[in-house]
Amino acid sequence: MQLSINALHGRYRAGALDPATLVAVLRKRITVESASNIWIQTLDEAQLRPYLQALEGRGPDDLPLYGVPFAIKDNIDLTGVPTSAGCPAYAYTPGRHAGVVERLVAAGAVPMGKTNLDQFATGLVGVRSPWGAVANAFDPAYVSGGSSSGSAVAVARGMVTFSLGTDTAGSGRVPAGFNNLLGVKPTPGRWSTRGIVPACRTLDCPSLFALNPDDAARVAAVLDGLDPEDPYSRPGRTAAGRLQRARIGVPGEQQRQFHGDRAYAEQYQCTLERWQLQGHELVEIDLAPLRETAALLYEGPWVAERLLTVQPLLQRDPEAVLPVIRQILAPAQGQSATQVFSAFYRLQELRRQAEQLMAGIDALLLPTAPTHYRIAEVQADPLRLNSHLGHYTNFVNLLDMAALAVPSGFTAAGLPFGTTLIGPAWSDAYLLELAQRQLQAEGFAGGGCFPEPWHCQDRPLPGRVEVVVCGAHLSGMPLNGQLTGRGGQRVAEVRSAPRYRLMALAGGPPQRPGMIRDPERGAAIEMELWSLPLEQFGGFVAEIPAPLGIGKVELEDGRWVCGFICEGIGERGAADITALGGWRQYLAGASR
Amino acid sequence: MQLSINALHGRYRAGALDPATLVAVLRKRITVESASNIWIQTLDEAQLRPYLQALEGRGPDDLPLYGVPFAIKDNIDLTGVPTSAGCPAYAYTPGRHAGVVERLVAAGAVPMGKTNLDQFATGLVGVRSPWGAVANAFDPAYVSGGSSSGSAVAVARGMVTFSLGTDTAGSGRVPAGFNNLLGVKPTPGRWSTRGIVPACRTLDCPSLFALNPDDAARVAAVLDGLDPEDPYSRPGRTAAGRLQRARIGVPGEQQRQFHGDRAYAEQYQCTLERWQLQGHELVEIDLAPLRETAALLYEGPWVAERLLTVQPLLQRDPEAVLPVIRQILAPAQGQSATQVFSAFYRLQELRRQAEQLMAGIDALLLPTAPTHYRIAEVQADPLRLNSHLGHYTNFVNLLDMAALAVPSGFTAAGLPFGTTLIGPAWSDAYLLELAQRQLQAEGFAGGGCFPEPWHCQDRPLPGRVEVVVCGAHLSGMPLNGQLTGRGGQRVAEVRSAPRYRLMALAGGPPQRPGMIRDPERGAAIEMELWSLPLEQFGGFVAEIPAPLGIGKVELEDGRWVCGFICEGIGERGAADITALGGWRQYLAGASR
Repeated sequence: MQLSINALHGRYRAGALDPATLVAVLRKRITVESASNIWIQTLDEAQLRPYLQALEGRGPDDLPLYGVPFAIKDNIDLTGVPTSAGCPAYAYTPGRHAGVVERLVAAGAVPMGKTNLDQFATGLVGVRSPWGAVANAFDPAYVSGGSSSGSAVAVARGMVTFSLGTDTAGSGRVPAGFNNLLGVKPTPGRWSTRGIVPACRTLDCPSLFALNPDDAARVAAVLDGLDPEDPYSRPGRTAAGRLQRARIGVPGEQQRQFHGDRAYAEQYQCTLERWQLQGHELVEIDLAPLRETAALLYEGPWVAERLLTVQPLLQRDPEAVLPVIRQILAPAQGQSATQVFSAFYRLQELRRQAEQLMAGIDALLLPTAPTHYRIAEVQADPLRLNSHLGHYTNFVNLLDMAALAVPSGFTAAGLPFGTTLIGPAWSDAYLLELAQRQLQAEGFAGGGCFPEPWHCQDRPLPGRVEVVVCGAHLSGMPLNGQLTGRGGQRVAEVRSAPRYRLMALAGGPPQRPGMIRDPERGAAIEMELWSLPLEQFGGFVAEIPAPLGIGKVELEDGRWVCGFICEGIGERGAADITALGGWRQYLAGASR
Repeated sequence: MQLSINALHGRYRAGALDPATLVAVLRKRITVESASNIWIQTLDEAQLRPYLQALEGRGPDDLPLYGVPFAIKDNIDLTGVPTSAGCPAYAYTPGRHAGVVERLVAAGAVPMGKTNLDQFATGLVGVRSPWGAVANAFDPAYVSGGSSSGSAVAVARGMVTFSLGTDTAGSGRVPAGFNNLLGVKPTPGRWSTRGIVPACRTLDCPSLFALNPDDAARVAAVLDGLDPEDPYSRPGRTAAGRLQRARIGVPGEQQRQFHGDRAYAEQYQCTLERWQLQGHELVEIDLAPLRETAALLYEGPWVAERLLTVQPLLQRDPEAVLPVIRQILAPAQGQSATQVFSAFYRLQELRRQAEQLMAGIDALLLPTAPTHYRIAEVQADPLRLNSHLGHYTNFVNLLDMAALAVPSGFTAAGLPFGTTLIGPAWSDAYLLELAQRQLQAEGFAGGGCFPEPWHCQDRPLPGRVEVVVCGAHLSGMPLNGQLTGRGGQRVAEVRSAPRYRLMALAGGPPQRPGMIRDPERGAAIEMELWSLPLEQFGGFVAEIPAPLGIGKVELEDGRWVCGFICEGIGERGAADITALGGWRQYLAGASR
């Protein structure tokens, strides 16, 4: 069954499916695969009923996630269902949804249950749980990745459309990489952490697993927005980016770490080459400051944050906590206040170094994990192999960055390989846009184990303004940099309504045309429609010399959009070139 | 001698004074007042020589602070001169200027010496120094305030034009209030802290004492800009604000704390009434979240930051540190890492509450200090009275806010009273603008003990664009809100070059004019020049319907500025009203 939002909504609209039927089918699928340890608890019919009832009389047109089934990592609150954080003795039953769940339910999404995880979200393996190791979606001998293990595999195995995880050190990315999914690790503070069991409360993010970029964008739009009840929620905005051709930071050969996994090394190189083929530029960067930052997370005082959550239980009943988790938390007991501040000072220096590193590139593209282990291997060497898996993820939240795990092919053994795009705070939408373009260009078949075709969105972007240009600002023309330098993006080639005369103005260089509105003698003029960030638009307008300016131009399709107008006085000394139909034709003729 | 930058530069330009002569005069003045304990070390002739030599062949037109003498708090590095932080055993001789000193010297300012302070900048009194208590500039029995005690009094006593202090808990504001000065406490990260002895490195700010708002703005402009070598330097920008009539937050009667000082209570009430008289609105706000934040600073783990600086000396030679400072630092020894994170979580909640509080107002206006103590009183009860003085200042840096101490009159005893404007991060320039308008309206005589007249600046503001309007956007007209709602400010009434025809366009409401450039038949049209934040300008432009737009308009004084233009087609059905000279005249005629 096709589970992408687009596919589901299509069938709902056509009357070929209803949410209750879908949920019943999925519950059977979940039961069949119970050996994979994906779920800690699934909702029964009675528990699902209120969510389905709330959809009655509604549809995909009222509710952006109408009838879309999702899974919830069991450190995130769902009203009336215990939150265990992977530790039965810790469990409590919340009286209220977590902030992220609240938004999803209000948008029509249907929670199918709570998923297995590394205890207290401390791990990247999916093996550290009293409910058993979560099997990888492609080969049950391999780890699922963690700590959001069940949430990832539930999506990959076609049990839900998307799922919520959390990500402090990589828990929303590593499982995405191991299960052929998109893993959205938002900018810290972008999505509410209210009602989520803290790991490191100053760093924790909810995360999202999705099958394709379109689903990721739709769910992200529902999750976005300040939560006034979460003190770590931030009022920032993420908007699409500025560059068609990106500068992509990659580590040099000697800084690539795959722990001897040649298949992963090859897949990474192959992925980089595919990005180059799409016109992106690879820039070698030094990972050293990122690596030092990563070391701070588990070797420095942030472990004391994890201790804050587990401490009361540890004091009451230490045996209730898995030995491996106790071992990780032990050093935090003796750490002093001054050690915390010393680590903060070093982190601040590293942040500055990382900013300088990022200033020269648009995004990093790293392997999501350096290699992929079998469950048995991790059980035999649980701390060391777990820490290997965080090599490319640990530093991201400490540096206040956004990340997006992207499916990037398969090894010869048929296991997924993933890479992760990483950018500065609030670059989230840009990273998703980059991934969307790349996956589309690569003919990405769709995520998880049951690929299904997906379609790129074509919606207007918020916080931007569209402006038509007809002369020296056209692509490749002398003033085009005034658009691209301000984050301009070419939207489309368009024509004006057939009511403009095109004049080659006196003066220059650069030579400039003027469009004169003239319903009687005018024609349709070839133009380009560009999109600019609204806050950049004023600076663009302010640079325009007389007799030109920005007013409203009528397009062939009847829309009036911002565009170049010309004072009547501009006609003096100008040549009427309307008959040529556009500025490019005029310049071509002039150069002949 | 008049020491404001404007006055000094006037005399330098006129050849009536040169920097070497000024410096010699000031050195004598400093010697005469040596009993006030203002200075820890002043520069001798040999030390001053390189600074004066660097000015040779230059002038006020090349160097914004050419020949302007300043003082440096002795926890800020000046090359080759010991930095003591108020503790002889701690002193070291830096090989490089602090970031802020580097910028001032490069701009032509001349350092006169290093000033006395509360040891390790821990105090608000100016009494905690082995170099003696610093006497208040107006009455030597009273405290100067601290910890930037000497820096404030040096400016107030006319020994320098301005000075550098530091401010973690109020050290740049309390001494300003007690000595009739402006005290600029920038947004944390606005000015470099490189080369400054840390108090709480995550909170420390350099601060500035100035005689008048013009001086403050000029020095601030030199200090602004990211310091890539300071990890706590931030890339933000501060720009002038949006409201002529501000909503000013003030505590209700029951939350005002003056420790029984009726003179201060009366002065505060009187100051509020003067702000009301200027058209500002007073809004009662609840100080509770700010008070709880303040308590965190000295009762919570931030004291561990102070310990980090002093610890090595305390271990080597505890007697070298003043007993009062040892007493303050003692509790930090036993604090744990988890305590730090718990305090951070609470602070984060309080920040959110403070944001909500600030969302309803443009700035807070609080007493700078609740009362003013005699030196002998503080010596008798050093901890309690010191903590009283931070009542209205302690919370500001923890909440990432900007503050500006503003001279606000005198008590009947002839002692200065000060208030402090407080706003969110990067509101600095707006706070200064508010103070400038208010002081000008009040006929402020100038700061310190020797007032001198000052003049408001008349320079274009960065990050803004000027736009002329001629019709429905004029003050009081139906579309004027499109300007004021975007932070627009009316700059001036202007006239166009005599080369425009004014047309009353067909259509409406609202009725709109169009200006048609016409050198032969045009006239000068009355307009208003407005200033808008550049990032708001695009939204303004995007709202304009055809046939109008924004291009360039020639003013009577020959400048071309952004303004309304009109497509030629707009003349169809329009009435030529050029002879009336302006839109207001047309509307007046139409309504008769």
